[in-house]
Amino acid sequence: MTYCVGILVSGGLVMIADTRTNAGIDNIATFRKLHVFETPGERVIGVATSGNLSISQSVLALLQEGILNQETGQIENLMNVQSMFQAAHLVGRAMRRVYEMDGQALEQHGLTFDMKVLLGGQIGDAPMRLYHIYSEGNSIEATPDTPYLQIGEPKYGKPILDRAISHDVEVRDALKIGLISMDSTLQSNLSVGLPIDVLVVRRDELEAAVSHRIGDDDAYFRDLRDRWSKALRAAHQSIPHPPYAELL
Amino acid sequence: MTYCVGILVSGGLVMIADTRTNAGIDNIATFRKLHVFETPGERVIGVATSGNLSISQSVLALLQEGILNQETGQIENLMNVQSMFQAAHLVGRAMRRVYEMDGQALEQHGLTFDMKVLLGGQIGDAPMRLYHIYSEGNSIEATPDTPYLQIGEPKYGKPILDRAISHDVEVRDALKIGLISMDSTLQSNLSVGLPIDVLVVRRDELEAAVSHRIGDDDAYFRDLRDRWSKALRAAHQSIPHPPYAELL
Repeated sequence: MTYCVGILVSGGLVMIADTRTNAGIDNIATFRKLHVFETPGERVIGVATSGNLSISQSVLALLQEGILNQETGQIENLMNVQSMFQAAHLVGRAMRRVYEMDGQALEQHGLTFDMKVLLGGQIGDAPMRLYHIYSEGNSIEATPDTPYLQIGEPKYGKPILDRAISHDVEVRDALKIGLISMDSTLQSNLSVGLPIDVLVVRRDELEAAVSHRIGDDDAYFRDLRDRWSKALRAAHQSIPHPPYAELL
Repeated sequence: MTYCVGILVSGGLVMIADTRTNAGIDNIATFRKLHVFETPGERVIGVATSGNLSISQSVLALLQEGILNQETGQIENLMNVQSMFQAAHLVGRAMRRVYEMDGQALEQHGLTFDMKVLLGGQIGDAPMRLYHIYSEGNSIEATPDTPYLQIGEPKYGKPILDRAISHDVEVRDALKIGLISMDSTLQSNLSVGLPIDVLVVRRDELEAAVSHRIGDDDAYFRDLRDRWSKALRAAHQSIPHPPYAELL
């Protein structure tokens, strides 16, 4: 399993992804799921993947090598597309290309063609965007009404996002809330694991403000987890008991 | 969808269930999912159900009418079984009986025979117990290591249980934490809805200490939701920003 979350607020973009993959619970490995494509001052793009690792790696290879655009005759890759909208279409085409190559064989073996992508970033003068791209290659985009998108196992980490994230939250708060959301998922789902990768991009800066890996020994993340646990305990302890529980 | 949680701590039992049923998102109704079978001083049993409403209602009818026990020649129902262990077996047999009646027809129409039960309570001198009974009629039991069980949509409400519930938590705290768990689920899943039903039984009292329905107008639950939201906000605000986010 996987947990990746992307948050697009007025000040910029936060993307966070774990690194645990598993093919059965006795076959666990660490693979980077959050990939950064960057030319500082020109573009910065984060690609987070969930689902079948073989499909994800093939799609990423295509995004680097490029795909021929029949209309323009150009080889398009993530380093030369001109907007995030074009980048989302390129990712979708790469996923469809891999489906053409591997989909039938996977299905013959009873496997589903399953891969999802969070794609966020900014290119040149074009607007900063965050997309969720489905296995079929189509996509949806984050908006001020719904400023975050998740792939993988979304449920454990969703309540804190629902309560705390809005479009006008500061970027550094969005980062902190995203890390709390990741912590909730790590606590409840063994198939999501450290280390986690973090990308933060401020709007119109066209380079990563933070590109950081958090491992077991990360003092800040350990402190955050500890403080959050204590704060939750204090929070429920501060709530009065129900009036109908007076006799309990 | 449904959310029901049962918590068995040293001092007693808490069961909480929502009441929303849906057959498609435009066919929503309210049905009680938490049923109490009680003879004060002799037995008190809570039955919470998730899954197909038709199956649940048939099973409940059988639990009231009774099922012939071939070994003893007795008609057994929830009001005459002698222990919670027997009660769990009775529920399992009722589910298998309904599967015999309806399972094949459901499967012919592409439907899964899906029903789960939380069964908690105490009978006479026998120990207080809490079971999760599966569609197949088999069951697992809560233990001091894992003192809570959930059916329906468990994920949104699980993080607070994982952090705050242990066997030695007081009953009234278990109730409060269970209500917070329900609130998290209500916040994130539209198919779980008010009113919610609550049953609390103190160990060895053999009658309900609390049997209460919480509706939209329940002042305490509204206050709990409001306080919990504010406390979560205060909690994440009190956590420092990451050291690598100083420039954000």
